[in-house]
Amino acid sequence: MSSHWVSRCVGVVSLSMGLLVSAPVVAESPAPVTPASVLEAAGDGAWQDMAAEDLIVMTLADGSKVVWQLAPAFAPEHVANIRAFARAGWWDGAAIIRVHDNYVVQWGWPSKNDDAPEPTYPAGVNPAPPAEYDGNALKTFEAMEFKDAYAAYTGHIDGWPVASDGPNQWLVHCYGMIGVARGVNPDTGSGSQLYTVMGHAPRHLDRNLAVVGRVVSGMEHLTGLKRGTGALGFYETDAERTKIVSIKLASELPEAERPRLQYLSTGSIVFKDWLKARANRQDDFFLRPAGALDICNALPPIRTQP
Amino acid sequence: MSSHWVSRCVGVVSLSMGLLVSAPVVAESPAPVTPASVLEAAGDGAWQDMAAEDLIVMTLADGSKVVWQLAPAFAPEHVANIRAFARAGWWDGAAIIRVHDNYVVQWGWPSKNDDAPEPTYPAGVNPAPPAEYDGNALKTFEAMEFKDAYAAYTGHIDGWPVASDGPNQWLVHCYGMIGVARGVNPDTGSGSQLYTVMGHAPRHLDRNLAVVGRVVSGMEHLTGLKRGTGALGFYETDAERTKIVSIKLASELPEAERPRLQYLSTGSIVFKDWLKARANRQDDFFLRPAGALDICNALPPIRTQP
Repeated sequence: MSSHWVSRCVGVVSLSMGLLVSAPVVAESPAPVTPASVLEAAGDGAWQDMAAEDLIVMTLADGSKVVWQLAPAFAPEHVANIRAFARAGWWDGAAIIRVHDNYVVQWGWPSKNDDAPEPTYPAGVNPAPPAEYDGNALKTFEAMEFKDAYAAYTGHIDGWPVASDGPNQWLVHCYGMIGVARGVNPDTGSGSQLYTVMGHAPRHLDRNLAVVGRVVSGMEHLTGLKRGTGALGFYETDAERTKIVSIKLASELPEAERPRLQYLSTGSIVFKDWLKARANRQDDFFLRPAGALDICNALPPIRTQP
Repeated sequence: MSSHWVSRCVGVVSLSMGLLVSAPVVAESPAPVTPASVLEAAGDGAWQDMAAEDLIVMTLADGSKVVWQLAPAFAPEHVANIRAFARAGWWDGAAIIRVHDNYVVQWGWPSKNDDAPEPTYPAGVNPAPPAEYDGNALKTFEAMEFKDAYAAYTGHIDGWPVASDGPNQWLVHCYGMIGVARGVNPDTGSGSQLYTVMGHAPRHLDRNLAVVGRVVSGMEHLTGLKRGTGALGFYETDAERTKIVSIKLASELPEAERPRLQYLSTGSIVFKDWLKARANRQDDFFLRPAGALDICNALPPIRTQP
């Protein structure tokens, strides 16, 4: 792919036939402010390191790695459980058990009935923390100005996409966010089975299941898996399931193997400029800037530490 | 998978450990109205056949079939082109050229520069119809009552998800919707390269690219493909590309091979009941019904003709 071609491609198009070869170059126009130009101009100070104790590295059978960031401020008991499962190597040998198109990828032990129970939990795991944690009101909530179908407000807290009714704030079910599978009783999810959203945001799940984090690297290793053909997208045979080699806390990996990731600080001016540029696309490609942005199109950018 | 297990699964959960075995049965409660119960109770009259001349069957190298429904009322010139390409067998031997995670799958001829132009167009194809068609104001628009970040109104016209500013209505970029790839000039897409949305709805593309239809069957054959590793998710080598055996109009297939699909009529009472049940989930699993629904979570249900 020639760089010439890349330079003439924006958004979802490929310029198949060199249509712009004879387009005039308007040298006097200042370059438009775009989401990419905002990030390029940002200083390192606008980026926030992700703590190693909040990062989980999931290694799949083919060696590919999926990295998750945990959100202890929003789901402290579930995150404590997840850290305990990871520390104990409890998931090592488990599998991707469900790939439901336009919905979720789910993993854990494929125990579907009482004949195949989950392995014994590590000491200290709470088998049934509350699905909803209400200790978020003290946090600084950076609200966006745009309308939302589901909540009075949407915005960001410490790098996380959040909705709010005023007194309460909660993590939303955006693409890549991780939640806790559970039974019909809302407080029955330990964190032993987790799912990530891989389709249009199923926002009706907000406040109905505990959201505990976000896939921050390697999402494509989950979303590119074959869809399950059983009910709700579950795989029906063990042969279909991608095995999990290990799920480890980054803080327990050797220094050299730890992912070094950063998110754009959602309290920064740069982030506000980036939101504005996303909502008002000035790139040459756009004919009609939307003038708005919904919360799941406003997930904070992530990068590797420079 | 035992039916016992299925009966205890709702939404995104698997009930791993038989947690509900001892739950009391409250026999007096009427069964809640759910999206599924609304569809089960619907008469055949609420379902509308998709016309064979609006259906396209794309056959991939492994024999899997992806069916699209065209939207001639919204993109008449692009749909005329697409029918001409299909009738001529113009795409037979083309490929899936791009799989961009949380964005789009794109297909056509992998001609990326002037050295590899597209094959000559069939007679009658307009190489550059307008990206936006403004003949929609006469249609019956069934507006939803919910807020939307991007448009004054959202709702449905004849089975299609639509946004509106009052005078104008347009198709929205929801999961599975099909659009026309183009160059930087908005009116440069012939329909020779198409994409379908496979992630959170990129609504900022609305009114910037022509939307021409929707994948109505076999979406999983596209979304489960390996993500492209080139810029914008394009495949970099021919070996990575899934070949397209053929793309044909259903009306040109033998009767026995035509897909027989129906959508729930968006002007029906049943559809309004279904939207209401989706927005106010009464299924046992839900702790807090959302009370709302965004347009891309309100895509009309599809079924095979009974």
